[in-house]
Amino acid sequence: MSVRAGIVVTGTEVLTGRVADRNGPWVADRLLELGVELAHITICGDRPADIEAQLRFLAAEGVDLIVTSGGLGPTADDMTVEVVARFCDRELVLDTELEAKIAAILQHLMARFTGVDFDAVLAANRKQAMVPVGAHVLDPVGTAPGVVVAGSPTVLVLPGPPRELQAMWPAAVADEAFQQAIAGRTVYRQDTVRMFGLAESSLAETLREAESLPGFGDLEITTCLRRGEVEMVTRYEPQSAPAYTRLMDLIRSRHGDTLFSEDGSLVDDQVAGLLAGRRIATAESCTGGLLAARLTERAGSSAYVAGAVVAYANSAKADVLDVEPALIEQFGAVSQEVAEAMAAGALRRFGADTAVAITGIAGPGGGTEDKPVGTVWFCVMLGDGTTVSRSVRLPGDRADIRERSTTVAMHMLRRALLGLS
Amino acid sequence: MSVRAGIVVTGTEVLTGRVADRNGPWVADRLLELGVELAHITICGDRPADIEAQLRFLAAEGVDLIVTSGGLGPTADDMTVEVVARFCDRELVLDTELEAKIAAILQHLMARFTGVDFDAVLAANRKQAMVPVGAHVLDPVGTAPGVVVAGSPTVLVLPGPPRELQAMWPAAVADEAFQQAIAGRTVYRQDTVRMFGLAESSLAETLREAESLPGFGDLEITTCLRRGEVEMVTRYEPQSAPAYTRLMDLIRSRHGDTLFSEDGSLVDDQVAGLLAGRRIATAESCTGGLLAARLTERAGSSAYVAGAVVAYANSAKADVLDVEPALIEQFGAVSQEVAEAMAAGALRRFGADTAVAITGIAGPGGGTEDKPVGTVWFCVMLGDGTTVSRSVRLPGDRADIRERSTTVAMHMLRRALLGLS
Repeated sequence: MSVRAGIVVTGTEVLTGRVADRNGPWVADRLLELGVELAHITICGDRPADIEAQLRFLAAEGVDLIVTSGGLGPTADDMTVEVVARFCDRELVLDTELEAKIAAILQHLMARFTGVDFDAVLAANRKQAMVPVGAHVLDPVGTAPGVVVAGSPTVLVLPGPPRELQAMWPAAVADEAFQQAIAGRTVYRQDTVRMFGLAESSLAETLREAESLPGFGDLEITTCLRRGEVEMVTRYEPQSAPAYTRLMDLIRSRHGDTLFSEDGSLVDDQVAGLLAGRRIATAESCTGGLLAARLTERAGSSAYVAGAVVAYANSAKADVLDVEPALIEQFGAVSQEVAEAMAAGALRRFGADTAVAITGIAGPGGGTEDKPVGTVWFCVMLGDGTTVSRSVRLPGDRADIRERSTTVAMHMLRRALLGLS
Repeated sequence: MSVRAGIVVTGTEVLTGRVADRNGPWVADRLLELGVELAHITICGDRPADIEAQLRFLAAEGVDLIVTSGGLGPTADDMTVEVVARFCDRELVLDTELEAKIAAILQHLMARFTGVDFDAVLAANRKQAMVPVGAHVLDPVGTAPGVVVAGSPTVLVLPGPPRELQAMWPAAVADEAFQQAIAGRTVYRQDTVRMFGLAESSLAETLREAESLPGFGDLEITTCLRRGEVEMVTRYEPQSAPAYTRLMDLIRSRHGDTLFSEDGSLVDDQVAGLLAGRRIATAESCTGGLLAARLTERAGSSAYVAGAVVAYANSAKADVLDVEPALIEQFGAVSQEVAEAMAAGALRRFGADTAVAITGIAGPGGGTEDKPVGTVWFCVMLGDGTTVSRSVRLPGDRADIRERSTTVAMHMLRRALLGLS
């Protein structure tokens, strides 16, 4: 027996693509962790009829739990609670205790703005205190409370801002009606492995070969290309662990050279670990600082990131990284020589022991026959003199090439720090 | 009369949030441009029953057009075409001409990899040449062809990789069956305005006031908070233009000081225009290069971006930007004094005439009572001596604070370049 769920994301700004939905994927992850099978995510605008149609669709598909996000704000286009009440056949009533809580929050918030008519704001926010009869209220994180309505399916109504939704999640999971809805869940194991430098179709070939392994049919495998890496995720019930072990033995024998993660770790995690005790600086041209931004994404990176120079203009390569102008003239800004000079400049300038340089043509202009758009030179240089340089030609548009370049750099860095060639 | 559409995004990696869906929003935008009303986006995993349920749901909702993305690859979990054929009640047949095309593409691709069994790859890709009887084939951009099946609704099947989907779109729109499906579309106008430094609830109050304006009811308005800006999008049929004009008069009178865009332009567009003929450098600490990355996102930015120094370590602030260590000691790295010294250092170091410095506490650690997490100092300095400094306290987590900081910086830069205070 398993528990299935659906997620309803509301908001015209999400439906029309003006804002990327961050809630669907986040809730999906949480549900999977809980052992709940996610069947559908549906997205619609702020139209009551469309929201209701999606609720009815999910109920007809037999899901045990529906999680909605968005449409809890003070403006007239926010009406998820109203629609959910109708769908669950419950009346909406004013929760006066909740109303007082929201008023207190608003009073605090409004202190930041001048010239605001507080009574008008309160009136606008009163509808946020209307809840379906018998529903459980989840305390607001921003100004919007969440709601759990028990039933078949049970409906959990959460706010749209990801920060509020995420902060409210633990209270939602602890709710009794929520726990009842997911009581029959199966606990799955999920393992993720990642490869770099492998064609997805080569992996597909290996998986066809794996079909003859005992128990292979009990593994639910998905593969995808992601940021230039091939990711394979396998979901299975605990008793199928031996089949997964057999599969991994085969994968290791076929693709061991490209397999860099078997424990779900990202190359970013691995590089962060390898940089402990070191001091890194980057010298970037076409990536414009994206590699430094990626290295400093995680808390604690100040322990090993010294800094970066984005030398976008050629004069900046010379002035800030001491790249000889003659090198640029002779070999071009996108060349092994200039990449190495940039890395050496970064080492010196920041007193670092680890440097990565990137110089390439992100396009759409600037390509030549010899060096078409997508040509990128990389250099990793370590304090002990180790120097690894490499050029690649990356596919895609300007944004793809810039982002993919940071991935290539991370993998070169990983291999250099591990002492691999 | 209007034409409604639905989008079905397939792929377990998208459903489970391992890969962010870029296709739904992109297709949504294109449909809106065509004047097609988008009703629903639905996302499901690679399970035939779920894909089919979504197709049936959209058909029952009366949409005229369904666009699917994903599930066209060579692996066994890719089965969108098969499901669509069943849904449209058509048999699948091998298109031998298409098979030859795919083989030619593969031969070219496989040249990059060594040790690949070409026949095995061909066999795996044969299913990509199976199409529903009578369907129109859209030539592959990668290896997967698209398909248009005319009917009620008409179904357009597109590949999952965004680059392939986007490249295939013009051919899909030109297709006769697609054109027939959208023949009854209404042309809408859509206008976007953006405000910075305004509470969303203040705008909500103005919109309630606007309810008394003649024709207001014919405007479909959505508002959202996005990257710290309030965005208002209004959709209306051309005859309602006077109502929109009245609304904008009201908004200008209430929020003129925060309204920075009435033509849909982003602050990035405006800053790019204002930087023409200038030379900018950034000096970044907590943002780790994100502002430089944002400034160089667009093609042609090399005309005005000189570069950046990410001075993550305090020693880098001193060594690379010539910030006096005594300043850091006296005022702390997150202070007006250090922000200004960083900006001055960037101007000098890059021979720039425009500099932006950012230094702040992105968290989660490092906050103090005086300077809690989220405290960020900014300085914009121009060649003529103009210096604008400001501190803000930003909400959210590390990623939010870093990203929001770039938005504050862009707005300060815009105002400084326009000569506003």
